Amino acid sequence: MASRLTRAPRRPAALALTMGDPAGIGPEIVLKTLADPRAVRGRALVVVGDRACFTAASRQLRIPFRLRDWHPELPLPPRGAVFCQASPPGRHAVPRPGRPGAASGRLAADAVVAAAALCNGGLTLGMVTAPINKDALRRAGVPYLGHTEWLAHLSGSRAHAMLFAGRQLKVVLATIHVPLREVPRRLTATGILEVTRLAHAALVRDFGVRRPRIAVAGVNPHAGESGLLGDEDRSVVLPAVRRARALGLDAHGPLPGDTVFRRALEGAFDLVVAMYHDQALAAVKTLEGFRAVNVTLGLPWIRTSVDHGTADDIAGRGIASAEGMRAALDLAAEMAGRR
Amino acid sequence: MASRLTRAPRRPAALALTMGDPAGIGPEIVLKTLADPRAVRGRALVVVGDRACFTAASRQLRIPFRLRDWHPELPLPPRGAVFCQASPPGRHAVPRPGRPGAASGRLAADAVVAAAALCNGGLTLGMVTAPINKDALRRAGVPYLGHTEWLAHLSGSRAHAMLFAGRQLKVVLATIHVPLREVPRRLTATGILEVTRLAHAALVRDFGVRRPRIAVAGVNPHAGESGLLGDEDRSVVLPAVRRARALGLDAHGPLPGDTVFRRALEGAFDLVVAMYHDQALAAVKTLEGFRAVNVTLGLPWIRTSVDHGTADDIAGRGIASAEGMRAALDLAAEMAGRR
Repeated sequence: MASRLTRAPRRPAALALTMGDPAGIGPEIVLKTLADPRAVRGRALVVVGDRACFTAASRQLRIPFRLRDWHPELPLPPRGAVFCQASPPGRHAVPRPGRPGAASGRLAADAVVAAAALCNGGLTLGMVTAPINKDALRRAGVPYLGHTEWLAHLSGSRAHAMLFAGRQLKVVLATIHVPLREVPRRLTATGILEVTRLAHAALVRDFGVRRPRIAVAGVNPHAGESGLLGDEDRSVVLPAVRRARALGLDAHGPLPGDTVFRRALEGAFDLVVAMYHDQALAAVKTLEGFRAVNVTLGLPWIRTSVDHGTADDIAGRGIASAEGMRAALDLAAEMAGRR
Repeated sequence: MASRLTRAPRRPAALALTMGDPAGIGPEIVLKTLADPRAVRGRALVVVGDRACFTAASRQLRIPFRLRDWHPELPLPPRGAVFCQASPPGRHAVPRPGRPGAASGRLAADAVVAAAALCNGGLTLGMVTAPINKDALRRAGVPYLGHTEWLAHLSGSRAHAMLFAGRQLKVVLATIHVPLREVPRRLTATGILEVTRLAHAALVRDFGVRRPRIAVAGVNPHAGESGLLGDEDRSVVLPAVRRARALGLDAHGPLPGDTVFRRALEGAFDLVVAMYHDQALAAVKTLEGFRAVNVTLGLPWIRTSVDHGTADDIAGRGIASAEGMRAALDLAAEMAGRR
C-alpha cells in the first residue's frame, strides 16, 4: 500500500484518440492531426482503431502513418503517439470512403469500446473521438444514437451532460436528441439542476473558473414573458435555478434564449445552460463554426469530440479540415493538465 | 386621371420615426439619432410622437430637440426632419423614465397609429419604430402583443412575416411569439411557403438580390434525422420546400437548424427561413448583437425596427446606445431607395 510519504509517481496524462467511422473523414483528420508537430509534441497519445484502415487512408491521402504498435500490457511511453489495434486484425475488408455500413460501424465501435477500456483502466486520462455514423452504428448492432449516452453506459456513469466549448462561449444542454414537440415535457427541474451542477463542477475542475457564473436559458420565447408565452419557464426552469442557488451556485435565470448567449460572450456569464439542441447549437455553431468542441460531462474521465459529422461526401478526398479535431485534442490536453 | 405621358412627380422618399414608449429609451435613441448629421442628411424624416415627452427627454439628457411642427395637410419638405404631434397635446403628464403604464402605453400607441396613417396615406414610404412595452400597451387597451401583428391590422395586410437583417445574416420566422410546445402544431406547409414567398419577394425588391438562394431550417434536431427525431421535417417542412421549388424559388431544406445559419453567413444562402423564435434569434443575436434590424414583410409599406426592448432599467440615464435605431433607419432608407 502506498504510504502518504512514498508518493506514487504521477500518472502519465495520456489521451486516447479514436479513429471514427473509417468510411468517413475520421482516419483522415486523425492522420492530419498526428502530422502536426504542435499537436503531438510533449503529449502522450494512444491512437485507437484499425491499422488496415489507417494504412489505406495514409496511402490514398499521402499522409504518413508511422506509429508503432502498443498493447495495454506494455508500458506507455511518456511522450509521443503510439497505435493500439482495436478490432481483430486481418479479418475484414477496409470500408470504401463514402460507403458507411455495418462493417464501417463495427470498426468504429471497436475503437470506441477499446478506448473506453483504456480510460476505465486508468491507462489514459480520457479520449478524443473522431466522428461516427449513427446509421452505421445501428447496422453494426450498437443500440446508442451517439457517443455521449454510449460512453456513459460503458463507464457506468449515472448522470451525464453534453457541453460545447468554443473560444467565446460554453454551453451545456438540458436535453439533447429530443424531437422539439417533446422538449417541454422532457424537461424537469431535477434534470436541469443536475446538468447545472455537472457544468459547475466541470468549470471549476477542468476549466479553472473559480466561481462560475451560470446563466440558465428559458424554454419559451422571451423566457415565457411572465407566462404569456408558455408556463414551463415558471414551473420548471425557475425552480431549478432556485435549487441551484440554494446549493450555493451562482445561477441566474430563466433568461431569454435569444439574448442569453450574447450576454455570456460579452462576459456576463461563464456558461449557458440551454434547454434544447437547436437553442444551444444555433448559437454556438453560428458563432464558432467547427471550432467548438463537444465535451461529455459526468464521466469518470475526460472526453472531448469534434463538433461535426463523418462528412461522407468528402471522405477520401483529402480536403477535410482537421481544425475541429485539433481543437478537441488541445482542449482535452488542457483539461488533463488540470486533473 | 394621370396619363402615362404626364408622369406624376416622384413621391418624396420620406420615412416616419416613432417615439416608442416614453417611459423607456425610445425618446432618447430618437434624439441621439437626430443629433447625428449622417443619419439626417439628405433624408426626409417625420418624427411622430408627443412633443412634451421629447422636450422633457431633451432637457433631462441635454440633447437638443429643435424640429419644427408639421401636419399632414402641409407640404413635406424634401429633406430634413420635422415633427408630427400624434397625441392630443397638453392633456397628459409626461411619464417618468422607467415607469411604464397605461399612460406611457397610450402615448406610444398614438405614435404608431399616426405613423401608420401617414404610411397608408402615401405621405411616408415607411416607418422606423422605437421600442414599445407590451404590458403598457395592454394597459392602454391595445390588443396586440407587438408592432408586427398590429401594423398588419392597421394596414389591412393579410399575410405578414418578421425578418431580421444583420450585417452577416438575414433570417425570417415561420412562427413568432408561440410557446415552444405549440410550435410543431402551429407550423403548416402553407404557412412556411407563404413566409418563404414573402422573404423571396423582399430580397428581390428591397435588398437587391437577383435570384435569392433560400435555406429552410428544420424543426427538430438534425432536421429530424430521417424521422428518428421527429416527423414534422418530413411531413410539414419538406412539402413546403417542394412547393416553393415548384413555384421557381431556389429553396433548400429542411436543413439542420444548428448549422444552417453558419452556412448562410459563409455565403451558401441569402436568407434562412427559421421555424421558431429562439432558433432564429439565438443565431442572429449571438452573432450580430443589437445591430440586427427587425423588418416586417407583407405590409404595403416599409417597416423596420430596433431589435431590442424599452430597457426601462436605464431609461432617462443617457447611456442607451442608438446603434440599433441608426441601423434600422439606414436599412429603411436603403430599402426606400430601391422602391
